[in-house]
Amino acid sequence: MSREVLYHKIAKIIEAQILSGTLRIGDKLPSLRSVQKIHGISLNTAKQTFLELESKSLIESRARSGYYVSISSQRKLALPSISKPDLTAKEKNPDELINKIYESLNRKDIRQFSLGIPDDSLLPIAKLNKSVIKITRDLGNKGVEIEPAQGNENFRRSIAKWALVLEGKLTGDDFVTTPGTMNAIFNCLTAVTKSGDTIAVESPVYFGILQLAKSMGLNVIELPTDPVFGVDIDALKKIIHKVNAVCLVSNFNNPMGSLMPDTTKRRLVEMLTFYNVPLIEDDLFGNLYFGASRPKPCKVYDEAGIVMWCGGISKTLAPGYRIGWVAPGKFKNKIISQKLLQTVSMPSLYQEVIADFMEFGGYDQHLRKLRQTLHTNCLKYQCTIEDHFPANTKISQPQGGFFLWLELDERIDTAELYDLAIEQKLSFAPGRMFTQHDQFNNCMRLNFALQWDDNLENDLRRLGQFFKKAL
Amino acid sequence: MSREVLYHKIAKIIEAQILSGTLRIGDKLPSLRSVQKIHGISLNTAKQTFLELESKSLIESRARSGYYVSISSQRKLALPSISKPDLTAKEKNPDELINKIYESLNRKDIRQFSLGIPDDSLLPIAKLNKSVIKITRDLGNKGVEIEPAQGNENFRRSIAKWALVLEGKLTGDDFVTTPGTMNAIFNCLTAVTKSGDTIAVESPVYFGILQLAKSMGLNVIELPTDPVFGVDIDALKKIIHKVNAVCLVSNFNNPMGSLMPDTTKRRLVEMLTFYNVPLIEDDLFGNLYFGASRPKPCKVYDEAGIVMWCGGISKTLAPGYRIGWVAPGKFKNKIISQKLLQTVSMPSLYQEVIADFMEFGGYDQHLRKLRQTLHTNCLKYQCTIEDHFPANTKISQPQGGFFLWLELDERIDTAELYDLAIEQKLSFAPGRMFTQHDQFNNCMRLNFALQWDDNLENDLRRLGQFFKKAL
Repeated sequence: MSREVLYHKIAKIIEAQILSGTLRIGDKLPSLRSVQKIHGISLNTAKQTFLELESKSLIESRARSGYYVSISSQRKLALPSISKPDLTAKEKNPDELINKIYESLNRKDIRQFSLGIPDDSLLPIAKLNKSVIKITRDLGNKGVEIEPAQGNENFRRSIAKWALVLEGKLTGDDFVTTPGTMNAIFNCLTAVTKSGDTIAVESPVYFGILQLAKSMGLNVIELPTDPVFGVDIDALKKIIHKVNAVCLVSNFNNPMGSLMPDTTKRRLVEMLTFYNVPLIEDDLFGNLYFGASRPKPCKVYDEAGIVMWCGGISKTLAPGYRIGWVAPGKFKNKIISQKLLQTVSMPSLYQEVIADFMEFGGYDQHLRKLRQTLHTNCLKYQCTIEDHFPANTKISQPQGGFFLWLELDERIDTAELYDLAIEQKLSFAPGRMFTQHDQFNNCMRLNFALQWDDNLENDLRRLGQFFKKAL
Repeated sequence: MSREVLYHKIAKIIEAQILSGTLRIGDKLPSLRSVQKIHGISLNTAKQTFLELESKSLIESRARSGYYVSISSQRKLALPSISKPDLTAKEKNPDELINKIYESLNRKDIRQFSLGIPDDSLLPIAKLNKSVIKITRDLGNKGVEIEPAQGNENFRRSIAKWALVLEGKLTGDDFVTTPGTMNAIFNCLTAVTKSGDTIAVESPVYFGILQLAKSMGLNVIELPTDPVFGVDIDALKKIIHKVNAVCLVSNFNNPMGSLMPDTTKRRLVEMLTFYNVPLIEDDLFGNLYFGASRPKPCKVYDEAGIVMWCGGISKTLAPGYRIGWVAPGKFKNKIISQKLLQTVSMPSLYQEVIADFMEFGGYDQHLRKLRQTLHTNCLKYQCTIEDHFPANTKISQPQGGFFLWLELDERIDTAELYDLAIEQKLSFAPGRMFTQHDQFNNCMRLNFALQWDDNLENDLRRLGQFFKKAL
């Protein structure tokens, strides 16, 4: 048999295994050497076989780990719709719903699919605690002293080192540290807007942004958003004259998980530069990519200093430390003086602890492991949802982060069903939380940054059955 | 000799010693038993002698410590004038000056009389560091978890326990913790004002309040303020219809050190309740009293929930921890939801550390020692200033806190002389920092929460000579 025919034949065998479900989404394929031995072929032929399967999107390679059955190989459920927020619709405040969800967050007896942070079991807590003790001793008197308003110098240097994706464009002096990423965003909004102004955001959008904007007297325009590619830049352009700032998550947004393509990012920054509209870019999930490399932030394309790039460690290391930062471009001095007035400074300890972890604690290794866990969990969730949720469920396909966005049958009202679900010890984040308009009532967000085990799988099945029954 | 004649005679001898300067301000008098033995009199007669001297304000008793020569016994310098801010005067922004003073704060080679916090040597740093290590171990996973927005429960309970002065009126649930006291004030202002509103403050006033108000688009009315008794309530009443909130330090204000009498506090709260104007009461220095007991806050008189009582530990324990709180009365829910949006929550660690120190670390003992040190320093500063500053210097007489307010010859411009002083390695806080108007140019604030030793005394003398030379 010619080599070409040979690898075709073997690829067909594996393809059949995938299509029949013998090999399932997220399963690891045998190594190249195993395939070589099993089929008695050359290494090159084995490679050709895998390339063939990859070109058909049936499998995907993961860095330093091998080949896996890809999600698109067996995808049965459709993607959620591109959102089309009705800007004329009456606003409907979801505050009450949000408070209700917050209240149940502390209940240990409930499966917290609604959580916005990773489960403790995925965080390097023992290492961090050890570092807290070491750094406390090292700091001595400095631990109780007030540090400069811009933030801890060691920590800012570490952030700059880790901002590899910016190709060395930023130094420690370009950053200002903040008590959490939400505070970075709050400070950015304070710096570039005043009461009565208008900001544009994704739709659905993280509810904290809506509440914050409201508390600041800002109007919010929700933009049409694609579950895969993020906000619709053309729709933004049409209303840009009304907008004083844009605020979005370019990489793996919350809740849809969409990832804005580089070309869109570049176009967005060019457009905002032209109209002189600042961009508050929340890049909290950027390091949690499932692909080969970290996606770029819009900040990479920022020549005029209009992009305020916000980040933090709440989604990867320690939510309770409340450590975030912003590279505020031309608004740096304003942000520093605001921080000085609002909080004077931040404690040095946790900033030094994170700097220490970034330098010596195996930050890279931790992130790699966390990404693998999240990617695997994402695929396991999708399989379980395909098997146990109503057949017309639509589901997002995030390339990073830890949220899945589900669009259920139109007759389902997730906010209305929430109390019933809590009775079943199951919680989720109803779609209605993520918009100021009366929409996404049949949607919900699920957190997959939890420890995958039989209990979790069972709870996810129960959630599917719960919705099947509700129909 | 009759007993009456006897104690009169001995009192006269001691009085002569005080007036001649043989006994100096702040010197400790011999104990009652020593006086009894020296003069061969009964213990009662000795007591009468001291009562006589005390009634003349020549000496003062300090709890559990004995009798001391009082400041009023030898006071040579006058009190600073009652401020009369000219509300029609053009505003003059002191931001540049403030930045200059901030810049020199990190220089270790300069005597930092300008500092707004106590010197490290007066703080229980070793104990706190030990507690950080203990609490980190105790907290385990909880150290990286997000706590409820209202703040750490143990800590709030400890604050309530320590708010003895409020006679049990407040429980832990009445408090919201904040990243520092400035953040408490910021949050209070955010809760009760909007851009374009007007607040009333003391004059001179802590410059951070002026800068914060300006950044929030608030107008500020500076009120006439007495260096001993604080703001003029009648002056406030005249403009109360223009005012959306009052913001002041009722106990040992910064920079004058004035202490509002209880009757004034009560009248103030009654008046503000009548006009429904909220009071943001910054009580950061209340525990640093030199007298027999802690002065009451205005909050004691608050029946309607209009007083937002702010406090913290930056002036007594650990400035760098950035731990403050507020008992926001009827604005509690608003403050909590603002905190949730702006910072989500605070790290548990330092809150637990302070709670631990309040419960088991000897907080009471630390405060007692700190108060004694500050009181002694205050008197030593006053003696040194009397001896070495220009004879027409006026000086405040604080009953607590750690600031002295000096009013120098009218030809002196402290802001102008600042650079020259820095060349002499001496820094102070020029009066111009503490007002939005063109006033207090011949004033300055000195910090006496420093370690008293020959060097410090020498630096203070040098500062006096510096101003003598400048004249």
